[in-house]
Amino acid sequence: MPDLRKDPIVNRWVIIATERAHRPGGMRSDRDEPAPPGTVCPFCPGHEDKTPREVLAYRPQGPANGPGWTLRVVPNKFPALRVEGSLDRAGDGVYDRMQGIGAHEVIIETPHHGQQLAGLSEAEIEPVFWAYRDRILDLRRDNRFKYIMIFKNHGRAAGASLEHPHSQLIALPVVPKTVLEEMEGARAYFAFKERCVFCDIVRQELAERRRVVYENASFVVIEPYAPKFPFETWILPKHHDSSFEDVRRSEYAELANAMRVTLRKLNLALDDPPYNFMLHNQPLNEPESATYHWHIEIMPTLSTVAGFEWGSGFYINPTSPEEAAAFLREIKD
Amino acid sequence: MPDLRKDPIVNRWVIIATERAHRPGGMRSDRDEPAPPGTVCPFCPGHEDKTPREVLAYRPQGPANGPGWTLRVVPNKFPALRVEGSLDRAGDGVYDRMQGIGAHEVIIETPHHGQQLAGLSEAEIEPVFWAYRDRILDLRRDNRFKYIMIFKNHGRAAGASLEHPHSQLIALPVVPKTVLEEMEGARAYFAFKERCVFCDIVRQELAERRRVVYENASFVVIEPYAPKFPFETWILPKHHDSSFEDVRRSEYAELANAMRVTLRKLNLALDDPPYNFMLHNQPLNEPESATYHWHIEIMPTLSTVAGFEWGSGFYINPTSPEEAAAFLREIKD
Repeated sequence: MPDLRKDPIVNRWVIIATERAHRPGGMRSDRDEPAPPGTVCPFCPGHEDKTPREVLAYRPQGPANGPGWTLRVVPNKFPALRVEGSLDRAGDGVYDRMQGIGAHEVIIETPHHGQQLAGLSEAEIEPVFWAYRDRILDLRRDNRFKYIMIFKNHGRAAGASLEHPHSQLIALPVVPKTVLEEMEGARAYFAFKERCVFCDIVRQELAERRRVVYENASFVVIEPYAPKFPFETWILPKHHDSSFEDVRRSEYAELANAMRVTLRKLNLALDDPPYNFMLHNQPLNEPESATYHWHIEIMPTLSTVAGFEWGSGFYINPTSPEEAAAFLREIKD
Repeated sequence: MPDLRKDPIVNRWVIIATERAHRPGGMRSDRDEPAPPGTVCPFCPGHEDKTPREVLAYRPQGPANGPGWTLRVVPNKFPALRVEGSLDRAGDGVYDRMQGIGAHEVIIETPHHGQQLAGLSEAEIEPVFWAYRDRILDLRRDNRFKYIMIFKNHGRAAGASLEHPHSQLIALPVVPKTVLEEMEGARAYFAFKERCVFCDIVRQELAERRRVVYENASFVVIEPYAPKFPFETWILPKHHDSSFEDVRRSEYAELANAMRVTLRKLNLALDDPPYNFMLHNQPLNEPESATYHWHIEIMPTLSTVAGFEWGSGFYINPTSPEEAAAFLREIKD
């Protein structure tokens, strides 16, 4: 059973999951080794028996856990957290721990192994977002879970251990530190201004346009004012909503459009970079909030986090967001 | 001039330093390319004219900016921040910025290019810590600076762009977020317990011993209870001091011993891993504090920060600190 442990100084939780060391790629993921020839991809159609049984599939034809699907969600075979059990919060001298309870799922975005999310059509990308929503609606009924983190690692340098296009979901029994910080910051801004800080950002960016990469009816894509890394890119809904799962139906198609255009621009600009994206969403089962505003952050993996960043939380970025946005705007996808 | 910009949501400062893209290695530091043959190392004796003029040197013989030194501190040729100018704090709509004022220096730890810090004798490592202290004492007289971050990147995967053994120092006009968090956490603990959280950690670790790697008269080396990464290792002074620059004279030799033993154990255990270490110190010109306790954190670069970590601030660690400590304890350096 994985262990959740809290740093007593900064109150950061970590997951000690020793079984993860056995997954493909093992512990030293900095050593970039391609899968040995003849390796069977567990996410490809026909290999459904290589994964745990599916928890969701969009399947025009065929029975569960067989081929015929267009999108499939399965529990992670090497989960960072386990679904079964109780939290058993306990002290350990000066420290705090609990059992590593949670859900860890894989969203297999397409049956096509050689494809990239960026290479799918908007009609193929949209179901990925519906799948995120379907899983959130299902998992939020489990009252042990306080937060669902949805993210994608693309490319080994960005942490992906399998090539086949997929994103991941981790349901957590605590609201993570980064989310709390974002919520507290947005609340402090609201207390001072009586406006949502994200709505103010959207307004200013649309007025100035210097950091705007793309927009459609519902979303604006920007390089943020203070990016940690070169070409960090955010997709923000223009309309205020605190939860991804509660947006209007038409917005998922618009989001698919914004995501496809953004990923294609990044691919053309940066020669198919490894990247991560993260869905920043409100914690589960909280009322719609005037202060928090869901969004997606995309970070191409272009540089290394080094001692200065680890020690300070400051980031040194050699590319201004204005330059990056101008460059991305010019690229025709 | 670099630009300091603040994220309006989480109040994280970033440094936009577009001239840094011109340094060796450029923007894509994930592409590991050795220096082309015939490249002259600017940190080697005889090449003193390839660096800006030294700000400190330990030199038994010879004139300034020539050979004969055993340790040399020079301004970074591609600084993230500039020493000259005023901060000019200003708003920019919803955002905040100031000029990128600060100092960025390189501590060249040894004249021997092919050596590693871990390969130096304790008598050679001790002056590195004295140099850190000398530079802190000098720079803290500049009242634009609020914090000095000292760190080491060893190996390209850990962010080093030059091979010759060196550490770095960045003086900042604001106290960085990570330091503020650590100080606030320690203050909250003290408010509740009326004890220093670091002193409590030292006491518990020395009593339990399960996570102790090494100790000498003044320092204990542990794998922390909730490590972000495998083999993350902390060197903690047993005696409470909030500032590195104020410790007793004899402690620098003990620190050199603890650092040498620790780095050699990590090298033997992990096959010469790339690593970062960071000096966690109290902000400049604050009175000695009962709550904060300086220390050094060492992080071998064994894994990648991926989407889950970026989005949540949670870390998934496949190695328990108890296992790592037992393994490191056994290694005879």
